[in-house]
Amino acid sequence: MVARAVAAPFVIGLDVGGTKILSGLVDGDGHIVAQHEIHSPGDSEEDVLAALDAAVEELLDDRVAAIGFGIPSNLERNTGRVLHATNLPLENIDLAARSQERYGLPVGVENDASVAALAEWKRGAGRGSNNLVMFTLGTGVGGGIVIDGKLFRGWAELGHVVVQEGGPPCACGGRGHLEVLASGHAGDRAARDLYGPDADAHLLIDKGHSGDVRAVEALARIGESLGAAIGSLVNIFDPDLTVVGGGFGAAAGELVLGPARGAARNEAIAPADETLRVVPAELGAEAGLVGAGLVGFEALVEA
Amino acid sequence: MVARAVAAPFVIGLDVGGTKILSGLVDGDGHIVAQHEIHSPGDSEEDVLAALDAAVEELLDDRVAAIGFGIPSNLERNTGRVLHATNLPLENIDLAARSQERYGLPVGVENDASVAALAEWKRGAGRGSNNLVMFTLGTGVGGGIVIDGKLFRGWAELGHVVVQEGGPPCACGGRGHLEVLASGHAGDRAARDLYGPDADAHLLIDKGHSGDVRAVEALARIGESLGAAIGSLVNIFDPDLTVVGGGFGAAAGELVLGPARGAARNEAIAPADETLRVVPAELGAEAGLVGAGLVGFEALVEA
Repeated sequence: MVARAVAAPFVIGLDVGGTKILSGLVDGDGHIVAQHEIHSPGDSEEDVLAALDAAVEELLDDRVAAIGFGIPSNLERNTGRVLHATNLPLENIDLAARSQERYGLPVGVENDASVAALAEWKRGAGRGSNNLVMFTLGTGVGGGIVIDGKLFRGWAELGHVVVQEGGPPCACGGRGHLEVLASGHAGDRAARDLYGPDADAHLLIDKGHSGDVRAVEALARIGESLGAAIGSLVNIFDPDLTVVGGGFGAAAGELVLGPARGAARNEAIAPADETLRVVPAELGAEAGLVGAGLVGFEALVEA
Repeated sequence: MVARAVAAPFVIGLDVGGTKILSGLVDGDGHIVAQHEIHSPGDSEEDVLAALDAAVEELLDDRVAAIGFGIPSNLERNTGRVLHATNLPLENIDLAARSQERYGLPVGVENDASVAALAEWKRGAGRGSNNLVMFTLGTGVGGGIVIDGKLFRGWAELGHVVVQEGGPPCACGGRGHLEVLASGHAGDRAARDLYGPDADAHLLIDKGHSGDVRAVEALARIGESLGAAIGSLVNIFDPDLTVVGGGFGAAAGELVLGPARGAARNEAIAPADETLRVVPAELGAEAGLVGAGLVGFEALVEA
């Protein structure tokens, strides 16, 4: 059994969210070979940690060589300590140390958008690239960056890049951040402006796909702001490609991506103004679990 | 002599600009032990290459283990090919390969603002840090980034980060880029608006230091735009500190840095909204030469 574990180890990946915890047995290529789901992880830190333990132990056997977490939080650089999770009662906790001690395995912890970027690089839209920037447009906006074939372990909080200095207020206290301009909430606001107080981003996107001009224009404005941020990131990272995912991003598709691509080309310096690529994510909701598994493999390599 | 060269090698660093080429013999700590200057490197590629050769050969002896160039150009990732230099007739040329062949030594080539960041990290305001972002405010705006104690080798064109979507046009074709809002040229424009067609950034800064309210306000606006960009970069890189250098940046000092610091804190997410540091560069005009030398040492280590 030991020889087999060394020859083909698996890791347990955990995609941790406010409403559910997905856990999966992931192989070295980022494929999920078994999966488990826990709903409503709870309202206290104690409950959430118990749910995380249950999610791990459901899949734990002697083939498991490491554990990886994708968490909706920014992390303290170097220590990997979870600073403050979104929609989850986890604050200032060293999840990696706790799990290492409990299971005696290498443990990796990363931001959920960063693990999605790692997943898209390994198995999704970024296969074969060395440098990748990813934006996840969901309720909020997240980001992840791969540099020279390795996940960048800084914050990569691409939702909090300033696009409009002095613009509309962001929940974080800043102004004109990408998250205010290009999240699902931005879609909700645009929908309410056009179609009344009960409308939301889903309706806006449906209308857009049906060719409603006002919806197409509103989504194009969102895309242009995304494109300005993509241009900034291209001028910093010169990536092989930029990947756009997340629930809102996937649903809006080219209604947002097309205008984003045009705006990004306007802002990118030569030669990226002609060569840059902006493509949709390929892994969908699976990206979080695959990426968490890959972070576990990174921890295994570093151990 | 060989044993001595191995024990304490020097590199030749070249700080290449449109009006002069500085060359220096640099030791492993980034100190300049000999220096040489060539004015007006010429109007053709042939002239410039001849001037570069003369600058190298002036200092070349058997203690020299590598050569490093700081060039006002973005570079092709991986190959290090010079794509298009600013104010110099160098375009699409593999300076590293040419010099390696000519001198039989390891050669490093990097963007001039990136080498300045490397210099500030090693010997200047960023000593002891692991992660640093640097902005150079000169005629244009450049940038450099150190990640985990190593120079980031992507573009790091921080002058072309979008601060005001749809804002004033940048020479690169984009809009609202930091370079339009916070360069010496931005200072010139503000000076002309306030004091007439003959005024320039030098006058604006003199007036500001003398307490002229209009000058102080104009420089504060420049600082606020810089601060918005710093906030974006902090939210991506979570650096230990942000360093601001360049001729315009150094001359304006706290008139720009103070408002930049405040704006950056407004835009940075927690805990960086309280912990971020924005400090002036320490090496001044020497940064380019020191950094070029350090890039030579990086090439030596990688050889």
